Amino acid sequence: MEAVAVVENKQVILSKYIEGIPTEADMELKVGETIELRAPKGSSSFLVKNLYLSCDPYMRGRMRDFHSSYLPPFVPGQRIEGFGLARVIDSDDGDYHPGDLICGITGWEEYSLLRSSNDLQLRKIQLDDDIPLSYHLGLLGMAGFTAYAGFYEVCSPKKGESVFVSAASGAVGQLVGQLAKLHGCYVVGSAGSNQKVDLLKNQLGFDEAFNYKEEADLDAALRRYFPEGINIYFDNVGGSMLDAALLNMKVRGRIALCGMVSLQSLSSSSQGINNLYNAIPKRVRLEGFLQSDYLHIFPQFLEHIKGYYKEGKIVYIEDMSEGLELVPSALVGLFSGTNIGKQVVRIAKE
Amino acid sequence: MEAVAVVENKQVILSKYIEGIPTEADMELKVGETIELRAPKGSSSFLVKNLYLSCDPYMRGRMRDFHSSYLPPFVPGQRIEGFGLARVIDSDDGDYHPGDLICGITGWEEYSLLRSSNDLQLRKIQLDDDIPLSYHLGLLGMAGFTAYAGFYEVCSPKKGESVFVSAASGAVGQLVGQLAKLHGCYVVGSAGSNQKVDLLKNQLGFDEAFNYKEEADLDAALRRYFPEGINIYFDNVGGSMLDAALLNMKVRGRIALCGMVSLQSLSSSSQGINNLYNAIPKRVRLEGFLQSDYLHIFPQFLEHIKGYYKEGKIVYIEDMSEGLELVPSALVGLFSGTNIGKQVVRIAKE
Repeated sequence: MEAVAVVENKQVILSKYIEGIPTEADMELKVGETIELRAPKGSSSFLVKNLYLSCDPYMRGRMRDFHSSYLPPFVPGQRIEGFGLARVIDSDDGDYHPGDLICGITGWEEYSLLRSSNDLQLRKIQLDDDIPLSYHLGLLGMAGFTAYAGFYEVCSPKKGESVFVSAASGAVGQLVGQLAKLHGCYVVGSAGSNQKVDLLKNQLGFDEAFNYKEEADLDAALRRYFPEGINIYFDNVGGSMLDAALLNMKVRGRIALCGMVSLQSLSSSSQGINNLYNAIPKRVRLEGFLQSDYLHIFPQFLEHIKGYYKEGKIVYIEDMSEGLELVPSALVGLFSGTNIGKQVVRIAKE
Repeated sequence: MEAVAVVENKQVILSKYIEGIPTEADMELKVGETIELRAPKGSSSFLVKNLYLSCDPYMRGRMRDFHSSYLPPFVPGQRIEGFGLARVIDSDDGDYHPGDLICGITGWEEYSLLRSSNDLQLRKIQLDDDIPLSYHLGLLGMAGFTAYAGFYEVCSPKKGESVFVSAASGAVGQLVGQLAKLHGCYVVGSAGSNQKVDLLKNQLGFDEAFNYKEEADLDAALRRYFPEGINIYFDNVGGSMLDAALLNMKVRGRIALCGMVSLQSLSSSSQGINNLYNAIPKRVRLEGFLQSDYLHIFPQFLEHIKGYYKEGKIVYIEDMSEGLELVPSALVGLFSGTNIGKQVVRIAKE
């Protein structure tokens, strides 16, 4: 029998279900676990070494003891999972071979045993010297695809329309704004620091941007930037920003409900949305969406966005941490906005 | 010169702008005004005798000092206007002749001088012994058309889907529910009294109905009637019912935002909508609409609904008051639900 290497496999596990926003204490770095570096024969699985892990706001939903959502919760005591980029080391799946790079749902750990049948979004990555590998978790991954599907499929944009994006420098928002500009729209973004506002205006090409933390009256801020109203609001935050946007929509405006980081972080005593009534006289459409409903256009997305990137028409800002032990703090930081751009953690060299 | 009759023209005027819900004190019956019973030559106007006036919740919006809505406010001291059914007495408009019956925007007064160019929804009515004349203000008027356009054009219904209607015995809701049944849907309605619930189940053909005032937990009530969730919520009330419906929508459910009588009646200290987040994992679409955007299908609506009515496939419940002096209390009653069915006031014999 062939000798199989057994190595330590550090993991980040969920300590316990959370109630509000995640804190570092809700997760734990577990050392001492070991793993055989092979994919068992007959298992149809393949073993990967994880290189980059993605931290995404939706993961908070899986940290709760709530079993009726579109994704099951994580299991306390077991490793967290999320999108990652990894290299195949051994395989019992004929479609995956040692050396292949893959992007899909993996574990928050050094090595993971994966099954392609468990992951509709699993895909192989071709090395391309013009594109950083980690971008497959952001610009060319779930976040970028959320921006692409949400903007084109949900917002029904038209040239010349006015577009507002919240959390605009985030993993999704920064691409929405750039796509809207390429589409010929007027684009304004909100963000939570002056540094992010500078990025939006000077690197990401937004027409205007503002720091919502410096605005006492969000309605007045939006009136200032959209004196004639908003055609499209790409909502990443919910809460009081959504309420203010509802007051400023144009007739037949569209609101893509993409995420509600702000509401998520509040308890059930939050004040709620008060201006939904305005959707009637203004005939506004609000639509919640998930990128996973649009996977049929993923190939088209990859082609378009790779093209735009290589032509220098779009840029992408990443916030890269280093080391598995930093994944919990990177995830927690999303909810206070400490990240600038797409939050990724490199846990091994390419 | 021909002698022209001059008669008294009692009017209901807006006393002052309102803040919350209208009260009878916000309106006043003004006597002693006179009017010449003719349409001045060269005016392109026509003079009508008003027969029936329609009381509709949207009118509250025009009683406020708010000038940015889709309709201008009424003017304090001047007569209120709304949909009415009237007979032409004199005309300087070649398309309208003495004796014609018309339905459109008229004044809350005995006689009105109208101009067709002011009213996109003005139309002539053919007497039809099978259809009560007043139905042109309800079943075959703005309310019925709101139900028709909202259900077919906004809700995108499919056979077998589950439909929830609030204010279900009202002018709009009663037709939505019947159309949904004819479409092969499972239909549940909510209303504010046991008498209305009986109507829904025993006369209007709803599968189920409940009295929301007797439900301590609206979420639990909806779970009881929709254990597998709601495909379509036709929302006439907003507020806590909308919030409960958001918790019970099926994946890709649709919410037609038609009116928010409940929210309208509350002050700005209302608690707001807390469950909009659910629209994201459930991919729910909420859409505000106005019937006036769909006038291109009005002829089709008339044909279909007249047909259904004559075939006995639908019924329509009216609440008829008598006399111009009762129009204010009839309007006010809409906001506490004292009306049963479509509220109309007959102010003159046909």
